[in-house]
Amino acid sequence: MTSTHETSASILQLPNWTDPVSEHDLVMRRREIHRVPETGWSEFVATARAAKILSDLGFKVRVGREFLNSADVRGRNKADVVKAEKIAIESGVSVTMLARMGGLTGCIATFETGRPGKNIAIRAELDAIKMTEPESPEHLPFKEGFASIEPGLMHACGHDGHQAVLLELGRFVLANKDRLSGRITFIFEPGEEGSRGAYPIVKSGVLDDVDILFCAHIAPELPAGVVVPAPEKFLCTTKIDFHFEGRPSHAGLQPQVGNNALLAAANASMMLMALPRHSEGMTRVNVGTLHAGEGRNVVAAHADMEVEVRGENEAINRELTDAALMRAEGASAAFGCTCRHTIMGEAVDFVPDDGIVQMITVCARHARYAEKIVPSVPLNASDDATLMIRRVQSRGGKAGYFLVGAALPHPTHHTHATEEAALDWQEKYLVTMYGILVNLLVGLSGNW
Amino acid sequence: MTSTHETSASILQLPNWTDPVSEHDLVMRRREIHRVPETGWSEFVATARAAKILSDLGFKVRVGREFLNSADVRGRNKADVVKAEKIAIESGVSVTMLARMGGLTGCIATFETGRPGKNIAIRAELDAIKMTEPESPEHLPFKEGFASIEPGLMHACGHDGHQAVLLELGRFVLANKDRLSGRITFIFEPGEEGSRGAYPIVKSGVLDDVDILFCAHIAPELPAGVVVPAPEKFLCTTKIDFHFEGRPSHAGLQPQVGNNALLAAANASMMLMALPRHSEGMTRVNVGTLHAGEGRNVVAAHADMEVEVRGENEAINRELTDAALMRAEGASAAFGCTCRHTIMGEAVDFVPDDGIVQMITVCARHARYAEKIVPSVPLNASDDATLMIRRVQSRGGKAGYFLVGAALPHPTHHTHATEEAALDWQEKYLVTMYGILVNLLVGLSGNW
Amino acid sequence: MTSTHETSASILQLPNWTDPVSEHDLVMRRREIHRVPETGWSEFVATARAAKILSDLGFKVRVGREFLNSADVRGRNKADVVKAEKIAIESGVSVTMLARMGGLTGCIATFETGRPGKNIAIRAELDAIKMTEPESPEHLPFKEGFASIEPGLMHACGHDGHQAVLLELGRFVLANKDRLSGRITFIFEPGEEGSRGAYPIVKSGVLDDVDILFCAHIAPELPAGVVVPAPEKFLCTTKIDFHFEGRPSHAGLQPQVGNNALLAAANASMMLMALPRHSEGMTRVNVGTLHAGEGRNVVAAHADMEVEVRGENEAINRELTDAALMRAEGASAAFGCTCRHTIMGEAVDFVPDDGIVQMITVCARHARYAEKIVPSVPLNASDDATLMIRRVQSRGGKAGYFLVGAALPHPTHHTHATEEAALDWQEKYLVTMYGILVNLLVGLSGNW
Amino acid sequence: MTSTHETSASILQLPNWTDPVSEHDLVMRRREIHRVPETGWSEFVATARAAKILSDLGFKVRVGREFLNSADVRGRNKADVVKAEKIAIESGVSVTMLARMGGLTGCIATFETGRPGKNIAIRAELDAIKMTEPESPEHLPFKEGFASIEPGLMHACGHDGHQAVLLELGRFVLANKDRLSGRITFIFEPGEEGSRGAYPIVKSGVLDDVDILFCAHIAPELPAGVVVPAPEKFLCTTKIDFHFEGRPSHAGLQPQVGNNALLAAANASMMLMALPRHSEGMTRVNVGTLHAGEGRNVVAAHADMEVEVRGENEAINRELTDAALMRAEGASAAFGCTCRHTIMGEAVDFVPDDGIVQMITVCARHARYAEKIVPSVPLNASDDATLMIRRVQSRGGKAGYFLVGAALPHPTHHTHATEEAALDWQEKYLVTMYGILVNLLVGLSGNW
Repeated sequence: MTSTHETSASILQLPNWTDPVSEHDLVMRRREIHRVPETGWSEFVATARAAKILSDLGFKVRVGREFLNSADVRGRNKADVVKAEKIAIESGVSVTMLARMGGLTGCIATFETGRPGKNIAIRAELDAIKMTEPESPEHLPFKEGFASIEPGLMHACGHDGHQAVLLELGRFVLANKDRLSGRITFIFEPGEEGSRGAYPIVKSGVLDDVDILFCAHIAPELPAGVVVPAPEKFLCTTKIDFHFEGRPSHAGLQPQVGNNALLAAANASMMLMALPRHSEGMTRVNVGTLHAGEGRNVVAAHADMEVEVRGENEAINRELTDAALMRAEGASAAFGCTCRHTIMGEAVDFVPDDGIVQMITVCARHARYAEKIVPSVPLNASDDATLMIRRVQSRGGKAGYFLVGAALPHPTHHTHATEEAALDWQEKYLVTMYGILVNLLVGLSGNW
Repeated sequence: MTSTHETSASILQLPNWTDPVSEHDLVMRRREIHRVPETGWSEFVATARAAKILSDLGFKVRVGREFLNSADVRGRNKADVVKAEKIAIESGVSVTMLARMGGLTGCIATFETGRPGKNIAIRAELDAIKMTEPESPEHLPFKEGFASIEPGLMHACGHDGHQAVLLELGRFVLANKDRLSGRITFIFEPGEEGSRGAYPIVKSGVLDDVDILFCAHIAPELPAGVVVPAPEKFLCTTKIDFHFEGRPSHAGLQPQVGNNALLAAANASMMLMALPRHSEGMTRVNVGTLHAGEGRNVVAAHADMEVEVRGENEAINRELTDAALMRAEGASAAFGCTCRHTIMGEAVDFVPDDGIVQMITVCARHARYAEKIVPSVPLNASDDATLMIRRVQSRGGKAGYFLVGAALPHPTHHTHATEEAALDWQEKYLVTMYGILVNLLVGLSGNW
Repeated sequence: MTSTHETSASILQLPNWTDPVSEHDLVMRRREIHRVPETGWSEFVATARAAKILSDLGFKVRVGREFLNSADVRGRNKADVVKAEKIAIESGVSVTMLARMGGLTGCIATFETGRPGKNIAIRAELDAIKMTEPESPEHLPFKEGFASIEPGLMHACGHDGHQAVLLELGRFVLANKDRLSGRITFIFEPGEEGSRGAYPIVKSGVLDDVDILFCAHIAPELPAGVVVPAPEKFLCTTKIDFHFEGRPSHAGLQPQVGNNALLAAANASMMLMALPRHSEGMTRVNVGTLHAGEGRNVVAAHADMEVEVRGENEAINRELTDAALMRAEGASAAFGCTCRHTIMGEAVDFVPDDGIVQMITVCARHARYAEKIVPSVPLNASDDATLMIRRVQSRGGKAGYFLVGAALPHPTHHTHATEEAALDWQEKYLVTMYGILVNLLVGLSGNW
Repeated sequence: MTSTHETSASILQLPNWTDPVSEHDLVMRRREIHRVPETGWSEFVATARAAKILSDLGFKVRVGREFLNSADVRGRNKADVVKAEKIAIESGVSVTMLARMGGLTGCIATFETGRPGKNIAIRAELDAIKMTEPESPEHLPFKEGFASIEPGLMHACGHDGHQAVLLELGRFVLANKDRLSGRITFIFEPGEEGSRGAYPIVKSGVLDDVDILFCAHIAPELPAGVVVPAPEKFLCTTKIDFHFEGRPSHAGLQPQVGNNALLAAANASMMLMALPRHSEGMTRVNVGTLHAGEGRNVVAAHADMEVEVRGENEAINRELTDAALMRAEGASAAFGCTCRHTIMGEAVDFVPDDGIVQMITVCARHARYAEKIVPSVPLNASDDATLMIRRVQSRGGKAGYFLVGAALPHPTHHTHATEEAALDWQEKYLVTMYGILVNLLVGLSGNW
């Protein structure tokens, strides 16, 4: 907490002015997005929408392969992608736009004011999660007719809202371009679920000249109207795929000839789940899936495992990751198999910049519907925005991440197996999120 | 070895007569069948063919559900069946015939001579195996243009030939119906691979009044022209599917809430592969496949394993099976999961009736192309015909099983992962198999 | 925090008077005890010493089997006991006293003032730990010649001091018996290490009429002079011994006959170490030792494991304990073995009574050498005094537990494998502990 | 099977003469030995006895370290040795003799006739097994008062008799030294149980100039009077000790710091017991003992396992051994531990020389009490004499191994966990064994 930050916070001057944003527009945009959920790395419709709207508003837009390197992409399922591209065409996405994407989703939109100033970036996520939308009269999207049209996919963690906010912010930027300075960058991240999308964005270099990065998240579990300018306990996590390769053999005729990949993986599973606890903080480990073997009477030659580890801080997470690799390699060697692993996703923790936290606090006080500011709550979850934040900070920039509470008055209780899923929340608090971000832009880059 | 048997053997009188069977017809029939391989419980085309031909010849024919009880069916993959029914329709199988089958394959064809006498049954298998037919100029079916038209499926263990022999025998029966007595029963068994089909046939009761059951197998590994009237070492085997069911839970948020079915299965895998050796004879055990889990960040709630055990005799095999169930149930209980198992297939051993062995020996001496009779060789494999043989014997009937060697002069060496696969053999020895069976019919039921 | 408590605290009146305790006597007593460390349930010398001294001072004394039920005893190693009894006799403990103990250690000494009043109890621990005392010139006991005379045993966690304090307090009681009212009970607990001794004391009923129970601990890790009246995070723990019993068999001649207890235990080990993390708080699990098998060529028929689980609170610890039992039983059943378990030790957490905490605070302010009062620190360790505290509280009594910091000015760093070991600390703070306890007695039962 | 051998057999000329050996002396000698059983590598009394007697008879005698290299010794337990040396002194073994042995047991006694001729060697084993002698009136040693004086040790597999035979043969050699030619070598092997002693004898070079080696074994399971000149199925075996070393750590305070050797060993146990069956022949594997860990609350830093593998032939046994090492090393690496292994014993198979088999057959016909010659029976056990036989054969010599049946008329049934144990047998068949060996010496080296 340096005095410089405090100063920059204290000089954040907000004009005595309220952006006439239309709550109705925000909500309608969110609902349009909600109807067409797309899984990670398959957000062709959403990418095209953002690209089209922001391009029309005067942003310079790059999509998919125009800024991402496919070698950096993690956790992209090719079958999902092929299917999603077809749906995108059916949904009216032009072949030209798909060609620009080159199979990769995500969008970077930058607005150059032409005046010197900071490069301020804001992140929104594109992907939905694999979950079936409830057909319940109490569930707003179902009641209001904007429920998911894709079976087994649903925007259940606010990403639809985040995109809507960013697209409305685009309209604000165009409308006020003469009062703004510097550059404004919108980042539409693909594949945030599974902590996949941030890594290739970081590697693309688009963050390297960002001065301030803002990330915001609707919090369906927090009371409506609460703003948290500095949530804590971003869990660090690494998602790892293991592939064991052995040697097949007929289990009846020559059992001794095979190198049993199924057994290697079964052992590795046990070893991984027995990774030790850590005295410095919370840990988690899960072998979520294991698929092995070719047939009942064949010594299995292939096995695949999807694994994740989590740690309360980056050091713990790294130790766990290293130990996990050691376990799997040992188990593999024991059975004469080979073991390859692929990092499929990753998220870290971070320390927000104090000045930024203070700015968010100030701006939240002026945001519509914001009722209470709670300095911090534990997030106890992962968001790979942290990788982007770390990148910006490592290049001398600053960053902040805030939550906007939007819990239903009487939230429906439901068993949900994924941490991200909250199903439903009050749409009006999108105005609050929008308001804080507008205020930040005005305060940091505006001349009113 | 009772004197009765010896007597019945010694009184086997073969007429001095040779059936004018056409080798060409036999071979052409085998090739027609070879072209359209079908996997176990999906042999709709083959069932319909046998039913049509034998019905036309005057046999009373029952197919699929007309004699089988679906509750007794083991190891039937519904997806395979649905796909196969479509192909069957495209291949010209009538909807009426499919309706008769009711989704189940297999055929029982009986010919009543109207004269008192024995009920003599002969078994042929319908199914092919999951194997890609080689496209090699040295491979006869490829060279002669009758290779499999179904990718990944192939008649590689002689079942095509066995069916051809039975269908030609049908023509013999009709042609000589006035010289034959008693009843003749042809059993077309579905799903022999994986030891699946015999069990529901046994349960159907069709064997209960059989006096003598003959099973025959082309032996591509035995020298051409060798006949083995009493092969030994039929391996006993049990094929078991295990299904573990636990409780899902978010692996990050509430790991302690889940009951981990993946871990239960991984442990069971280890325990099963560590089943002890047996002092009384050979054993085998294999966990061939393991599929578990719903997602990377979910405590797995489901796991499936395909397992097989083998024992040199039935007692060993039963002990192993019992121990396997105990292992899986213990592992499941340890993790608070439930464990269901399904017996997917089963084969036992048996002792052939001496008199029958002697009859086969006598008949083999008179069969075309038969060059040498080797009393016994170890089979070292399973055939669930043994279940049928046991049933017949338990009801006071008798049974025999013989091999007809048909090795290529210079067999191509190849790595094959399944014990059943031999890829290629000399078609002319179908005449030998046919000849032995015709002689048996003539000697046992004929009046020449 | 009820007003009653606050009142009782606020009325705690300490006389303007200082007990003329001799620091030298306290220290000499501690050193005498330090020289003769005894392991848990083998503290015959220490029990006899306490019994003799307090009996001479007019306390009514019960030892070992005079108040404990052997069926309730946990974690007593018979071989250790036999050896210790011999040493006790060599050390001058009378056979009469040993006969009174009846093989069980521990001592309850009560002083009846004859005047109505509360029953105030104070606990001290008798046992040392299995650790070799360093022969280092910097190590006070070695330098001053009072190091352990028993190889591999050492008073390394302050229990020697606690006993010394209680014995001096006995002298205070006798000297001031006319000014005290009610009853005073000293509890000398055997086997506190491993959380073994409290359980049978609870079961003995001696706590059932205790009004207030005080426990105190020297804290070699806390700065000297710091008093903590209400430490937190007493870890809950359960110590479990597992014994697997299978069936032996010659591994070469009849491997299938055996039921392999070694494999059952090996599997259980894996399963136990893979017990899930808990979202509600810290967990630990350890399979510390595993001993299995009779010989290289025998299928192992016996296996023993020493296991412990820990949880941040009692609910977590109980869930873990239950899951551990389930794992072991499942693994055992899988191998056709039987599995017995014995709870060898147990400690829980507790909430101190606020009034008591305030009294300790007040008394600490008046204790010699007390420099600073820190309301709470996390203990992050277990003390089965918590079982006694829970018992007292469940009967309507109250209880408190305080720490007295006594760190060396320049503590020697050492690797120690046991949480309890701190090796060395400043003896003068025994005066502080004594002072607080004297003040509590005076304030609660005194009439000055 | 060369004609030379047949020739040498056919020319074996036995004089028409019977050695006047005293059955009483043989039996008394056996009983003297039986009373003092010693475990492997601790046979100080037996070594000293053989050395004394044969030295007195004119043999040149070397004991323990006089011919063995301690670096080659396998499976020697130092604690056992220290204890046994004390007992030996108490039993009257001179300090001088113990000094000659230098801590190693075993004896080579050679008799030089001074005439050119073959070097004929005969092997007897010195060690008893760890087994408690039954105190049953039906058990001859108990009834006749020569039962073991060492609790938990017993000569239960005939080694006492073998020694007695060799010592009596020594008397024959001296008595007939003028009629014998060449050299006669008696090998008293220590530690045959566990297949330990042969290896260092082979390495010592004492077999390198042996022309013919004879090994003989009393067979308590074979009918009395049956001689088997060429038993088959000597099982190949390797005895392996594994030692895992990890890193200790307090399981509560820093679980993540430890490298868990207990878990490494538990996993290795599972993996070893799951070593695959072999299509070429019988296999066995056993993890007989596992000892791991230092204390309940410490992450285990040490683990020891005693393992054995067996194979029907040497190739299978070697494959299993290699796979076992790979399993253990992989499991160790997985947990960041190191793994050392020591080969503790080893036995192979062998093909006896036909000529030798024929000689034994001829000599057996002339041996007292020999009633029937059965060419071969399966041994289905191991004897590391096979290592010596292989050595002799590899240097151009020949070797044979025969059994002498000595079953009791009504053998007591008992459960015994070790293959070697047969408890009791008819002593008179020592005369048969003696007779065959005398005949072999006479026939091969005698001039009568």
